[in-house]
Amino acid sequence: MLMTDIIAAKRDGGELTREQIEFFVRGVTDGSIPDYQSAALLMAIVWRGMNRRETLDLTLAMMNSGDTLDLSSISGVKADKHSTGGVGDKTSLALLPMVAAQGVRMAKMSGRGLGHTGGTLDKLESFPGFSSALTHEQFLNQVERVGFAIAGQTADLDPADKKLYALRDVTGTVQSIPLIVSSIMSKKLAAGADVIVLDVKTGSGAFMKTEADALTLAREMVEIGRLAGRKTVACITDMDQPLGNAVGNALEVKEALALLKGEYHGDLEELCLTLGSCILTGAGAAKDEAEARAKLERGIADGSALEKFAEFIEAQGGDRRAVYDESLLPAAPVRYEARAESSGFVRHIDAQGVGLVSMHLGGGRETAESGIDLAVGVELHKKRGDAVAAGESVATIHARDEAGAESAARLLLAAYDIGAEPPEAAPFVKAIVRED
Amino acid sequence: MLMTDIIAAKRDGGELTREQIEFFVRGVTDGSIPDYQSAALLMAIVWRGMNRRETLDLTLAMMNSGDTLDLSSISGVKADKHSTGGVGDKTSLALLPMVAAQGVRMAKMSGRGLGHTGGTLDKLESFPGFSSALTHEQFLNQVERVGFAIAGQTADLDPADKKLYALRDVTGTVQSIPLIVSSIMSKKLAAGADVIVLDVKTGSGAFMKTEADALTLAREMVEIGRLAGRKTVACITDMDQPLGNAVGNALEVKEALALLKGEYHGDLEELCLTLGSCILTGAGAAKDEAEARAKLERGIADGSALEKFAEFIEAQGGDRRAVYDESLLPAAPVRYEARAESSGFVRHIDAQGVGLVSMHLGGGRETAESGIDLAVGVELHKKRGDAVAAGESVATIHARDEAGAESAARLLLAAYDIGAEPPEAAPFVKAIVRED
Repeated sequence: MLMTDIIAAKRDGGELTREQIEFFVRGVTDGSIPDYQSAALLMAIVWRGMNRRETLDLTLAMMNSGDTLDLSSISGVKADKHSTGGVGDKTSLALLPMVAAQGVRMAKMSGRGLGHTGGTLDKLESFPGFSSALTHEQFLNQVERVGFAIAGQTADLDPADKKLYALRDVTGTVQSIPLIVSSIMSKKLAAGADVIVLDVKTGSGAFMKTEADALTLAREMVEIGRLAGRKTVACITDMDQPLGNAVGNALEVKEALALLKGEYHGDLEELCLTLGSCILTGAGAAKDEAEARAKLERGIADGSALEKFAEFIEAQGGDRRAVYDESLLPAAPVRYEARAESSGFVRHIDAQGVGLVSMHLGGGRETAESGIDLAVGVELHKKRGDAVAAGESVATIHARDEAGAESAARLLLAAYDIGAEPPEAAPFVKAIVRED
Repeated sequence: MLMTDIIAAKRDGGELTREQIEFFVRGVTDGSIPDYQSAALLMAIVWRGMNRRETLDLTLAMMNSGDTLDLSSISGVKADKHSTGGVGDKTSLALLPMVAAQGVRMAKMSGRGLGHTGGTLDKLESFPGFSSALTHEQFLNQVERVGFAIAGQTADLDPADKKLYALRDVTGTVQSIPLIVSSIMSKKLAAGADVIVLDVKTGSGAFMKTEADALTLAREMVEIGRLAGRKTVACITDMDQPLGNAVGNALEVKEALALLKGEYHGDLEELCLTLGSCILTGAGAAKDEAEARAKLERGIADGSALEKFAEFIEAQGGDRRAVYDESLLPAAPVRYEARAESSGFVRHIDAQGVGLVSMHLGGGRETAESGIDLAVGVELHKKRGDAVAAGESVATIHARDEAGAESAARLLLAAYDIGAEPPEAAPFVKAIVRED
């Protein structure tokens, strides 16, 4: 089999055979196919697309390019969750204990990531002593015993995706439904869960700018999950402004804790209840959405979700007292109010702009080697639709020093669009896509 | 400027600026742009195409990636010729002396090439002592004094094309009009001639299978040549069967000599008269095609074209006696007749199939390091439309040994399509494309 023939077949609009797709993924993984040939094929796929059979074969070949986790030693139905990412997304921190408190176990691999804040693992390191370095056995044991674990990769999962993603990132071939689907779903399938819930963000701050594109991606992922034998649900949710109010590592941890304590109400809570309901019904732990939401809300009200989170922090070496005493979490020395220059209504908040403020303050990584400041970030007091008076604080900047805080405040105000009329109301959860 | 932005712009169907195109070509030439990014852009160009302005900018940037020849020290109008290639194409060997004998100087760089036979330089090495290794000064002096020279590259011409062509060859990105045009025209422009005549082959044995594709390519090249300030003409000619009767290095030299001696009449002669007329009229050495053809025919009849060829061979160190005495040229020990199995008319000869016979006999290179046998090859006695009787020889195989000759004869007969009815007549010269 020749890679040039595979490239030419896709270039000319043909359908690749399973053998051709497996040859490609194997060659990417073992390095026998040079990057320039992979890049040419990736661009041809962006151009010509892939049908569902090709997408499934690509996903399975990538899943099989490395280890796959066997979660069969863990009791009951195991669930996993994935988000396509956005600004202020601390969902896993609250969702996993909420679900685990209802008896559905969640085994989550996570990463550090580049961007405006750290990844979930960075955020969790706000807890003194916390470690995400679990062996495979420790990981399985903790999920069984505590109900969930969040670890860095304990195995060599999906090496084909690591190589292909790095290549797509520098060759303009990120934006392709079959390539996005196979990248996300191959990792989720390799991670072994029975129930997969996908949070597909849409809006100006999301990768999928339009609801139509988000729906297309969601439908394709749900279908690939189904064909691979996993229960898969996707929620299309808003990322036209940051999620919740906090953007920044420790600030996001505090917001997740507030949700678990019943002290936070807003879009983040709505998201956790929606995703959590999909998981509980998908896992057979609730007969319908109403029952699932009631259970999840009861877990917050009776403190069991928060206690589950504390168990988790302790199990991974962290100081559980910080779950109940926020003064033990990182805090920035300087707080500075970003005050509105005019009165009106918040019409839009540029999520990427807010993310850049966090980056500017030192809360994100520019390269994989960069350090990260867990304490800094932004706390938004006003979100879309809120009324604002001139001089009123729209957000508190948490910074290392005054100078950084002032310039961050200017950047942040530029991300706010304040106008005379309130914006049209838009639902936070746009759609839920289930198997056909 | 970021290469990822350039890739994304073309991927999304945009027009690249001159600065973007120059950045790309510079990065390819100095190696600062990795091959995988170039491959992605090339596939995006195959997909989205390039408009004429982009094609011109790409051509000029490639031309300027290395040395450009200054032919101003040579008297008069200088001409160059390029063919898109085919089986049995020994045109330059006869055309250049025919034109030079009429006082129009031709400065030709040539190559060795991979394929069914060697390149022009290999063929010329049939003359004992002949060398294509001229210094730049020797090259210019010889063109001035003799009227033409054929040399390997005397300068670092168009290094961007060398890199891009090698990459296109292994990434399925050869077939793109703007990429083909810029590859051919950047080299021709760098080689410095005032008049450029292009022989665009069409048919089953050509790169451009259809006349429509050949016309599109020809029109684009002529227009790019005009915009770059060179007199450019393209002839669309038949490559539905091999050109002339000989395929093989020394055999092709002998056929060119036969043409120069007035002993050959057929499509090769028609091609040389057509291309030669375009050059003479383009250079102002004839007022119209009729006058040009008459001059070229007279140059054959009075022996001046043949004598010009002998001067050229001598100037480059070869034995001029071989021009007049073919026994001094390489000859294969075995001759074997390939005899028709049935009677009828030759309906089609698969040019690629005949090329493979030459390769099989040892007349071509499979890799750049392969040796090449100048003596072997095929002499066709029957071409399209000719009547054949069962048992009659359609071709003579020139081989190293009997066994090779027999298997070559079987392969050759498989390339012949002999049927009861003669094929429809088709003109050899399909069209001549001049500047608008």
